Amino acid sequence: MEIEIATIGGYEEVGRQMTAVRAGNDVVIFDMGLNLSQVLIHDNVETERMHSLDLIDMGAIPDDRVMSDLEGDVQAIVPTHGHLDHIGAISKLAHRYNAPIVATPFTIELVKQQIEGEQKFGVENDLIKMDAGDSMTIGDHGVELEFVNVTHSIIDAINPVLHTPEGAIVYGLDKRMDHSPVLGDPIDMKRFREIGREDEGVLCYIEDCTNANKKGRTPSERVAREHLRDVLYSMEDYDGGIVATTFSSHISRVTSLVEFAEDIGRQPVLLGRSMEKYSGTAERLDFVDFPSDLGMFGHRKSVDRTFKRIMNEGKEDYLPVVTGHQGEPRAMLTRMARGETPYELDDGDKVVFSARVIPEPTNEGQRYQAEKLLSMQGARVYDDIHVSGHLNQEGHYEMLDALQPQHVIPAHQDLKGLSGYVNLCESEGYKMDRDVHVSRNGNLIQLVD
Amino acid sequence: MEIEIATIGGYEEVGRQMTAVRAGNDVVIFDMGLNLSQVLIHDNVETERMHSLDLIDMGAIPDDRVMSDLEGDVQAIVPTHGHLDHIGAISKLAHRYNAPIVATPFTIELVKQQIEGEQKFGVENDLIKMDAGDSMTIGDHGVELEFVNVTHSIIDAINPVLHTPEGAIVYGLDKRMDHSPVLGDPIDMKRFREIGREDEGVLCYIEDCTNANKKGRTPSERVAREHLRDVLYSMEDYDGGIVATTFSSHISRVTSLVEFAEDIGRQPVLLGRSMEKYSGTAERLDFVDFPSDLGMFGHRKSVDRTFKRIMNEGKEDYLPVVTGHQGEPRAMLTRMARGETPYELDDGDKVVFSARVIPEPTNEGQRYQAEKLLSMQGARVYDDIHVSGHLNQEGHYEMLDALQPQHVIPAHQDLKGLSGYVNLCESEGYKMDRDVHVSRNGNLIQLVD
Amino acid sequence: MEIEIATIGGYEEVGRQMTAVRAGNDVVIFDMGLNLSQVLIHDNVETERMHSLDLIDMGAIPDDRVMSDLEGDVQAIVPTHGHLDHIGAISKLAHRYNAPIVATPFTIELVKQQIEGEQKFGVENDLIKMDAGDSMTIGDHGVELEFVNVTHSIIDAINPVLHTPEGAIVYGLDKRMDHSPVLGDPIDMKRFREIGREDEGVLCYIEDCTNANKKGRTPSERVAREHLRDVLYSMEDYDGGIVATTFSSHISRVTSLVEFAEDIGRQPVLLGRSMEKYSGTAERLDFVDFPSDLGMFGHRKSVDRTFKRIMNEGKEDYLPVVTGHQGEPRAMLTRMARGETPYELDDGDKVVFSARVIPEPTNEGQRYQAEKLLSMQGARVYDDIHVSGHLNQEGHYEMLDALQPQHVIPAHQDLKGLSGYVNLCESEGYKMDRDVHVSRNGNLIQLVD
Amino acid sequence: MEIEIATIGGYEEVGRQMTAVRAGNDVVIFDMGLNLSQVLIHDNVETERMHSLDLIDMGAIPDDRVMSDLEGDVQAIVPTHGHLDHIGAISKLAHRYNAPIVATPFTIELVKQQIEGEQKFGVENDLIKMDAGDSMTIGDHGVELEFVNVTHSIIDAINPVLHTPEGAIVYGLDKRMDHSPVLGDPIDMKRFREIGREDEGVLCYIEDCTNANKKGRTPSERVAREHLRDVLYSMEDYDGGIVATTFSSHISRVTSLVEFAEDIGRQPVLLGRSMEKYSGTAERLDFVDFPSDLGMFGHRKSVDRTFKRIMNEGKEDYLPVVTGHQGEPRAMLTRMARGETPYELDDGDKVVFSARVIPEPTNEGQRYQAEKLLSMQGARVYDDIHVSGHLNQEGHYEMLDALQPQHVIPAHQDLKGLSGYVNLCESEGYKMDRDVHVSRNGNLIQLVD
Repeated sequence: MEIEIATIGGYEEVGRQMTAVRAGNDVVIFDMGLNLSQVLIHDNVETERMHSLDLIDMGAIPDDRVMSDLEGDVQAIVPTHGHLDHIGAISKLAHRYNAPIVATPFTIELVKQQIEGEQKFGVENDLIKMDAGDSMTIGDHGVELEFVNVTHSIIDAINPVLHTPEGAIVYGLDKRMDHSPVLGDPIDMKRFREIGREDEGVLCYIEDCTNANKKGRTPSERVAREHLRDVLYSMEDYDGGIVATTFSSHISRVTSLVEFAEDIGRQPVLLGRSMEKYSGTAERLDFVDFPSDLGMFGHRKSVDRTFKRIMNEGKEDYLPVVTGHQGEPRAMLTRMARGETPYELDDGDKVVFSARVIPEPTNEGQRYQAEKLLSMQGARVYDDIHVSGHLNQEGHYEMLDALQPQHVIPAHQDLKGLSGYVNLCESEGYKMDRDVHVSRNGNLIQLVD
Repeated sequence: MEIEIATIGGYEEVGRQMTAVRAGNDVVIFDMGLNLSQVLIHDNVETERMHSLDLIDMGAIPDDRVMSDLEGDVQAIVPTHGHLDHIGAISKLAHRYNAPIVATPFTIELVKQQIEGEQKFGVENDLIKMDAGDSMTIGDHGVELEFVNVTHSIIDAINPVLHTPEGAIVYGLDKRMDHSPVLGDPIDMKRFREIGREDEGVLCYIEDCTNANKKGRTPSERVAREHLRDVLYSMEDYDGGIVATTFSSHISRVTSLVEFAEDIGRQPVLLGRSMEKYSGTAERLDFVDFPSDLGMFGHRKSVDRTFKRIMNEGKEDYLPVVTGHQGEPRAMLTRMARGETPYELDDGDKVVFSARVIPEPTNEGQRYQAEKLLSMQGARVYDDIHVSGHLNQEGHYEMLDALQPQHVIPAHQDLKGLSGYVNLCESEGYKMDRDVHVSRNGNLIQLVD
Repeated sequence: MEIEIATIGGYEEVGRQMTAVRAGNDVVIFDMGLNLSQVLIHDNVETERMHSLDLIDMGAIPDDRVMSDLEGDVQAIVPTHGHLDHIGAISKLAHRYNAPIVATPFTIELVKQQIEGEQKFGVENDLIKMDAGDSMTIGDHGVELEFVNVTHSIIDAINPVLHTPEGAIVYGLDKRMDHSPVLGDPIDMKRFREIGREDEGVLCYIEDCTNANKKGRTPSERVAREHLRDVLYSMEDYDGGIVATTFSSHISRVTSLVEFAEDIGRQPVLLGRSMEKYSGTAERLDFVDFPSDLGMFGHRKSVDRTFKRIMNEGKEDYLPVVTGHQGEPRAMLTRMARGETPYELDDGDKVVFSARVIPEPTNEGQRYQAEKLLSMQGARVYDDIHVSGHLNQEGHYEMLDALQPQHVIPAHQDLKGLSGYVNLCESEGYKMDRDVHVSRNGNLIQLVD
Repeated sequence: MEIEIATIGGYEEVGRQMTAVRAGNDVVIFDMGLNLSQVLIHDNVETERMHSLDLIDMGAIPDDRVMSDLEGDVQAIVPTHGHLDHIGAISKLAHRYNAPIVATPFTIELVKQQIEGEQKFGVENDLIKMDAGDSMTIGDHGVELEFVNVTHSIIDAINPVLHTPEGAIVYGLDKRMDHSPVLGDPIDMKRFREIGREDEGVLCYIEDCTNANKKGRTPSERVAREHLRDVLYSMEDYDGGIVATTFSSHISRVTSLVEFAEDIGRQPVLLGRSMEKYSGTAERLDFVDFPSDLGMFGHRKSVDRTFKRIMNEGKEDYLPVVTGHQGEPRAMLTRMARGETPYELDDGDKVVFSARVIPEPTNEGQRYQAEKLLSMQGARVYDDIHVSGHLNQEGHYEMLDALQPQHVIPAHQDLKGLSGYVNLCESEGYKMDRDVHVSRNGNLIQLVD
């Protein structure tokens, strides 16, 4: 059976992930993501109303024209998890393919919301939920799609595996190797090792190289949680305001914040549009068991009303968890820093960033400004209480060891960023151009012909 | 009562700490440390045989000549904990003073060993043990010395407090604010807050500014422990060699390593001269309850014999914890990296650095070389599994809040390094030259006259 | 005669410089500057209409209330050169003092423009021009004010020296030691050495510590000029667009750009409001001899008209020198990068930044965005073609050697930034608190009483 | 005619360069270099006595076994210039090939010395001198070898061009684009542009990617010279010791040092083994016209004798130019720093590093130690007076523009280091794997078959 891989997006950057695998006549697409930074560099761009071609020109969504060179039928579009760089282009591209979108329940729900917000295209692909551990048949020639449970900075993430007669194709984006996650199950390394050994073994492994140049092992979410606990417990006796911020989609982290807020005698409340969106969705789908009275508010008006209530009842009884961990100009924490909300910061109030600045000068500048404005109001800043959601080098090493793939394809980075992964592979006996395929957006790699 | 403070050493650098406080006619000396880097920059210097004056000229030990300007009698020499930069000059300077050395039991034991190794001077000062929480009277005019329990990267650390009729002098070196340490009691913040409120309050606080330019809060040792657990547990299935290194004097960390080694089915063994020294001392003094069969070997011969045994019986059953976390040329791990020991590293063997590189180009160069040599043998390196033993800015903020001192004196850094502390104090209403005293080695500060 | 120094602004930051020296009953004020970054952190602040007290509260201008503690009459306000951090608060503070403003002709002209733009206060102090090398008498007790020629990144900069019966007070802000400047005379080291030896010598030297932590020697403007020449000459054969940007007030640099533009067969044209202002002023005052047909346009309309003309006549014949070297959102180059001007960038067009990014995250973020937008249009970026206008450590060393001052006061930095200067002084035999006075905003230092 | 390229060494690192080009049956080898850092990481390795295979195993010299897969006869070995990473393996590998070594006169002389120092192998290949601008015929099928003059940090550097019926192969290592070098002719861009247009144009360009991730344009040596002049002239009045160090093989820089030493009234003298070697060779071959009385001393004894003479006659009359710019433990400057030579440093003496630290932790550590030891003796350090010898991105851009090659092969870097070059090429319309060939050591690339 011919096996061909189209590396469509995310092979020259982090963002706008998209990869297609053809097994004989059947094609499966993994991820359709958005590169938000290519949008934000421009002023006043509203993606909801834009045409795909303009977004492709901007480098914001994958240029999927190479799909016409793949001779086969798309049988499924499979986003691995709900982050924008993996689902954000579905509303712009999926309608071109006559295929269902298959994903885990939480991801499907986020895809649904994405499609509902779209104002240019009507996207009517079927949405099919499949859980980690489950499989489905693709086409009529013995190809099977399996979801293996992985751990990432969002819940319900999986690595899809396409079992073909020629061996398995493991699509490894995005994950860290977490044996003690805070929500959900540990990464299913047992299954990966089985896949490495069974049948034809692994024909090809496509790897998440986000942290390919970072040494060591990405710590478990449990470590971030202990760090966060240590920080919040240390504030137990403080009787002023405490505010926290984190990635809205990072439900485990939000859960920890909510839990520790209660431990130190404060009522947590989630504020900001995306904070409400992700946590609300996770709660409705029973991924998390928040306290029944946990407030979540997204609209500016209800947020400000909540802030007023907090000011009236006493800041010392609340712990708002807000958007704005990167100092985004319009996020809630930045508004607080600029004094644009009813929440007043006093000398000694604590602001906890359970996030790391994404290392890019624009973010760094914005975050710096937010922190400076917070400090000018007397706030005390606690930052970097975080662990990455992506494998570092030793995770990559362990995955190679478990899967023993014939071919590897580094993804989710530019050339500089993935260089460490090539070095690792070569130290393990692979060789670039022979079985390590450093690809670019829009390339086709024929593995079996 | 006149109160005067002599900032003798460690006010222009990290290392060779020494401070004297005169209350009326009674003088207490806090710390007598060694600045090891001033020794190591020279080739082949043997401090054991050197005269104090030469070591003073080298900037290696405090220049205590200013003591002749302090009119009073030295009643006690009080090292706060057993690190070399706090006790390393006792064998060169203490014999000049007719006063006992007063310290906690673990520190006293290390001082004793220090004195026994000295080959130039005979040091015959009395050694008096006093526990955290206890007090003793100094002189005849109502001055009292109290030990408050603190948490640091070595066990049995205290902050001495000199209670005088004019208020308390709190000598704050070295600590982090740890509410959940792995060994020993949490920092006694309750007592610090009492001292801040009782009687005359705090006249002066001398602060450990090592991390004064670092944001946020130093995590608890518990966080490093969870990180370390995560790393070692992830290696549970590995059936080759695993080697770890950390600060020899960091008994909590060594304890965690020993414990996790056993958890993953390996026999821990401590190797290297200082590894044996510190852990052996801690065990003899009952600070730690190591497994009864834990091997500790210091002499090169017995270390190599142990390595041979490990190679014979199977690397997969052992976890050597060795010296060499900074890549020191003569330490055990560096010898292993150079292939100079019987322990053979194989492809995939793990080396765990539970330490951070001390950020100075010499260390960075040596550590880089050690890691490169290890990698050339196929070892996989895990580094930076560590938390600092010193307060960051938010710890400084909390100490000021607890003690409410009239005066503060930043210590344990150079001017650049302590600048963040001055900024913090000024944001809290203090003012440089009025009540924040940025001092230099050899200065006298008269607080009450 | 009593000598007292008030360190009013710029002793805890770079920006809002202000220092007063009292000699007996006569007071001279050096500099009254604005800290622009404290303004820009807020959205939509218009300083022209603001009251001094609000600007003081913002940390934008010096808090001159300490002046009431100086018992004497202000005889002169002496800005050293025309940069905003030295003259930008004159329009807000000078009217409080019944004293003339004394400065070199170029500086006086910029002060005049500053005052004319002021919309809140009427500033009616006399403006007195005095050239480098000249002196004037201050009061009736033998005090004299001398201007010594120095070299900086703006023309007509001086260091004022106040000769008193107790020795000279040398106010050393801002300068580099340039023996081969492009415009104007070399720094007058001969005069500094004389002042160091004559009469009572130098009682006090107030030093520009901007680069106190930088090693070596700041290169001459001649070196930047050679670098710039090398860059522009290398483009001689390019037949598309070339654009350059630099500090508008850096007349020597603008001169070099103009000259090299002509050398490679292009017509230079200066564009942007502050570009027109500074270059126009320098030309009117005969500090520079630009080509008679050199266009300078400040208003957006005339700039855009010029761009249109350039596009019509051929980009290959022009070299626009524009504002925007830091990526400032509203500057000309940023507008070009956003495609908001009639000038169209093509693949291969060159953009030359004859400036260094001011190392602060906000600037770095903005500059990064500007460069990214330029690159997205195909532009090739040449950056960092620059030398600093401030002394590095070896310049400080030479100044100490020349002046042999009894006292030194580091200025123009925060504590961290000036730390290298204190270290240097102490290596030369000074001692902090004895004759090195690390001060803070609002302090008084009594040198002779 | 078949054209094939073997990328033998220097495609995964900087160092041990070696590339072979086969045109039909004729093979030309470009460079045979040594990666010194792979030697120095080990203690006490003497390469002179080592076998090639051991050096290959160490990664110190190219693994040329792939040459057996190249079906053709080696007609010439062509080192491009005299740096060790380009000629250092000739004494270990050249004897395996029955072919002459063809190079420019200065390079040939250095190769000869290299061969004479070899103690393991007898190397008896013919040594043929060919000047820049000249050509020679290779084999009998219309292949020609041309030397194009380039500019680098060593004199007499060329880029060899192999003219084949299929187009030219331009081997672009190592160069910067210097239109105003201090010694020798400017880079021959006119010839490169001709080659780009004539006949079949350029089939393949192999590029020096050392600085591929650096923005802008590498300045001319003229800029470094002006910088150096500025530094040395600023010391004209100093009447103590001045010492300078630079790359021994950097004859232009040494020439500038010699010239400026005389300008400021000091007698230059060159000290250290490799200082004598390179400058002596350059002088003997008439590449430079040193003052007739310029002393050059290599042996430690004669160096120390010279130092004694300088101390006797007065340091203020001399300017020793010594080895040791990277703080190498056994170099002359390091010996001076450790007080191991008769030259005594006094307070205020100047040490000029006309070199940049090679950014690798080992170098950085050694250089830091050397500087610290110098400072401890009171020396004032001037560093970083240097420009790189390699093209930055805009030089790469210009070369692509001049040559318009069909294929490009990035070399002289690891994958991370060359990533910027791939990005540049792709922005110019090339595409990785199609016409940008990112290769690895030991690969064959068939361009025409």
